[in-house]
Formats: sequence, structure tokens, C-alpha cells
Amino acid sequence: MKFNTTLPNGVFTACLTPLKKDLSVDFDALTAHCKWLLSNGGDGILLLGTTGEANSFTVEERLEIMDKVIEAGIPGNRLLMGTGCCAYPDTARLTKHAVERGAGGILMLPPFYYKQVDDAGLARYFDLVINAVNDERLRIYLYHFPQMSAIPFSTPLVKNLVRQYPGTVVGMKDSSGDWSHMEEILRDIPGFKIYAGTERLLLRTLRQGGAGCISATTNATIRMAAELYRNWQADQADSLQEHLTRVRTAFDGYPLTPVLKQMFFEWTGDPAWLNIRPPNALQEKETIKILSENLKKLGFSI
Amino acid sequence: MKFNTTLPNGVFTACLTPLKKDLSVDFDALTAHCKWLLSNGGDGILLLGTTGEANSFTVEERLEIMDKVIEAGIPGNRLLMGTGCCAYPDTARLTKHAVERGAGGILMLPPFYYKQVDDAGLARYFDLVINAVNDERLRIYLYHFPQMSAIPFSTPLVKNLVRQYPGTVVGMKDSSGDWSHMEEILRDIPGFKIYAGTERLLLRTLRQGGAGCISATTNATIRMAAELYRNWQADQADSLQEHLTRVRTAFDGYPLTPVLKQMFFEWTGDPAWLNIRPPNALQEKETIKILSENLKKLGFSI
Repeated sequence: MKFNTTLPNGVFTACLTPLKKDLSVDFDALTAHCKWLLSNGGDGILLLGTTGEANSFTVEERLEIMDKVIEAGIPGNRLLMGTGCCAYPDTARLTKHAVERGAGGILMLPPFYYKQVDDAGLARYFDLVINAVNDERLRIYLYHFPQMSAIPFSTPLVKNLVRQYPGTVVGMKDSSGDWSHMEEILRDIPGFKIYAGTERLLLRTLRQGGAGCISATTNATIRMAAELYRNWQADQADSLQEHLTRVRTAFDGYPLTPVLKQMFFEWTGDPAWLNIRPPNALQEKETIKILSENLKKLGFSI
Repeated sequence: MKFNTTLPNGVFTACLTPLKKDLSVDFDALTAHCKWLLSNGGDGILLLGTTGEANSFTVEERLEIMDKVIEAGIPGNRLLMGTGCCAYPDTARLTKHAVERGAGGILMLPPFYYKQVDDAGLARYFDLVINAVNDERLRIYLYHFPQMSAIPFSTPLVKNLVRQYPGTVVGMKDSSGDWSHMEEILRDIPGFKIYAGTERLLLRTLRQGGAGCISATTNATIRMAAELYRNWQADQADSLQEHLTRVRTAFDGYPLTPVLKQMFFEWTGDPAWLNIRPPNALQEKETIKILSENLKKLGFSI
């Protein structure tokens, strides 16, 4: 099957959302960060993913975030926008808006409150959203992140959605970290645009025919990840991946959104990075000091 | 500590939300069902709980559901309203509205998308909501349902919230089914208004000093549960509980919202009960036939 997409392969970053002291969005800082990611070699940006605190914003706030990023001149074919909510009318509204504003792709969580649901119920949710949006420009990437959503996409469900909506359901962000799941999808749905949820699996994903990665930590590691992507078929690919993996591993065990924000404060001195919406919460200064020292030991800075 | 509340002790039902064919709310059927529950002995109604498919509705839809039920004459001191969303501004908006419309209590889920969060982040979420609502009539009942929300309320967090917001954080719906958790809270916070999440634990909860139950299955078992509550200090209490438990146990293992809706279709013949929002999905007819027969064997009907 051919999956026509406008989004490029490569390295996407699940963009952080800088906030003001009153926890409203700092649009200037957000658009500056998007531009910084692209100018440092990023192929695209996931706006309103888990790392971007998407689910801590209202629908209206999310619509405004989309608008402001588009208006700042970030090209639509570099933008994947997260729209998956628990209530399908919310998802449909966000998705329609993102498509109309030119977003090249939509990243869709499954509805994540109700557990104990079967594939039929999940499929019906996608039916309702896709029919409500009713736009041939719609390109959906399924957001598989069972550790956070608690609702995995089973391989049969993915295959059914692809079969039912060819040209619309075109890819997946696989944040499970479970290589066998990715491998199964890549084997069963050749050409499906799979992005690993971590740059740790970037080279492996590309060699297996996947599209790239969409990662939280590439907010920081973007230059290294982009360099690996530019050279993934070159001799130095393995050693680039090895070094990237070492840096990425320094973040293991930390809640990523707060520590990434706090590290950006370390690197830039801008206190705006210290604002975060609950339930996410800043980590102890001592924790950040250790992480910071470990990154320095690896010779890493942004 | 004294917990002043306007909501009564006793049996609350996590009210089903009847829908039209296009999945919009059937307000006439909803208010009729609320009245039916109260006229069959129910002490109160939880509007927009898990069973009411709260998280499958937009904020605007939830506001309208609240309004229509109030306008239909259901007294505020019988109404507990579910308002907990992932984004604290949504929760604040719904909560403010519910309080202003006279709801006697607010049932609040913790923000349930982000996992790996600590008590400090959860406490800050409640701070933001309580300060935004800023109304002395606000009475919060914490919604502890780890199997669904994946975010448990730890006992230290509950105690901190009660200490910080005395008179505001007044109770809990404990749907964990974990008696030791309920016992711990009842022992550590005497007088705290704990409702068990199932009528199976009604008598035990009352004897331990708890407030009652808030249950999905009392949509059906309301008369039996109400009879037990009226007689919980009488000789026949244990046998009433035993019979109630037998009926409740017939529902074990089924997803409750769809099977309750489907059983109401069986009992009333009204096809409106067969509409449900995804990701919840109707169960196979064969499944309902078995459940229906098991209930008949127990001599149960609404």
C-alpha cells in the first residue's frame, strides 16, 4: 500500500509548551522554540503531544496554540498536531481545525479514560471523528503509548483502520518502546509511516523501513538526532546512534516534561521554562543538578 | 473534624446518560430516569460519573446536562456532579457552574492522563481548581477509582487536602473495591464522608462509620439498595445485604455502562437505551441474554 503524506520522514520533536507565570501559554517563546528546533535540523514538530502538556489545556487553548504556531510561519508540512481527547466531538473539532489550518498530520490518541474497552468501540470512535472531519487532506498518525494512555492499539485494530481508511490512516508514533510491536506493524503494513517514540530507536527504525522518530528528548538532542538522520546510511551511523543513545539514556527514569523544562532553564537562564501545569510538577533542584552534571560529563549541551 | 454537607448519607446512583440515535443527550429520558431513581428510594444522584459517560462529553455538553437536570426540578441537595477533567481550567469551569446551579456536591477525578505524577502535582491541581472556583458552598468529594483513572489518591494526599481545605474537601467515592483503603481513610479521618463505589459494601461501610454508596448498578438495584439503607440497623440488614450482593454479583465481569443500558432496553423496550458513545460499546446479544437469565433466576427485575 502507498501512504501519501506531506510530512517528511526524519526527526520530529514533541515540542515543549513554554508557559507564563499564570500558566497561560507563552506564544512568543513557543514559536521561538519551534523555529529553533527546525533551524537546528529538525524535520518536523509535534505540537500538543504528551510532552507539550496537551491534555492539560482546554480545547480553546489548544485551538489557539495551533493558530499561533501557524501564524508564526511554521510550515504546515512540518507540523504534526495532537488532537486526541476522551470525547470524540472534541477530537473532531480539534482535528478539523488543524487540517483546515494546513497541518500536514494529526496525531491521535485513543480515548483514554475508559478502560476495558474493545477494538470495536475504539474503531467506532475513529469512524465518528473521520466522518465528522470529512476532509481528504486528513492524515492520521495513531498515537500508541500504552504506558500513558493505558489503551494500546492492537495490531488487528491498526490493520482494520488502514484498510478502512486508506490514504487517511497513514502512520503511527510508537512510544511503547516495545520493538517487537513496531517490527510487527512494519512487517504487516509495509510503507506505513512508523515513527519510534525515542531517538534511541532511530537508526533501527530507519533500517527496518520506518519513517523516523518523534521524541520528547529531541527538544534537547535535536542537533545530534538530526545529524544521525542525515547520515543514517553512512559509515558513521552506528557510532552517531551510540553517542545519541548515551545522552538520551541520561534522562532515563525522570519525568520528561518537567526535567526538560528545567534543563532549558539551566541552559538558557530564562525563568519562563520553570512554569508547568499540574499534575506535572517541577523536580527537586538536587535532581536537576545530578542530571545536569551527567549531561556535562557526556559533553552534552544544547 | 466536622464535615458539614448538604448531601445526605445513603444510596447514590451513578446515573446512566440516555442518548438519542445521533448520540446527543436525550434530556427527557435523562431527567425521567433521575426522577425514577429518587422515587424508588434513592437518596441522591451522581450526575456525570464514569457510568454516565462523563468523559465522552465535551465541557459544553456537560454544562447543558447539569442545567437540564436542575431545571427539571431535581433538588441540588440530592445532586453530586462529576467535574474532574485532565485540564484544570475545564474542571474549574464545570465546578463553578455546578456550585452556582446549586449542586450539593462535586465529585472530582484527579487529572488522569499523565501518569508518573507525584502528590505535589496532584495537590497543586486541586489548589488551582479550588482557588478558581472560590465559593464557600463548594463541597468536594474525591473520586478514587484507580482501575479507571490510573491515578490513586494516596492517604497522605487525602489527609493533606482535608487539612488544607477543611469544610471544602469533605468526602470520597471509593471505587477501588479495596476495603483496606476505605478502612484506613475512615480510621484516619473520622467523619469523612466516604461512599463505597458498590452497594456490595453498603452495610459494611455504614457500620464502619461511612456515608453510604455511589454505584453504577444501583441504576437497576435501587429499590433493594434503598431498602437495605432504610433498615441497615435492623435485624434483617445482613440478609438484605446478602440478597443485594447476589444480584450485584450477577453483573461481575461485564463492562457496566453498556450492559446496564442494554438491560434497561430489556426491561423497558425503549430503544433509546441502545445508544452509547464510543469507546464504550454495546455487548453481544448473547451476552445480555445470559445476564438477563441470571437476573431472572435471582427473581430480579427493576
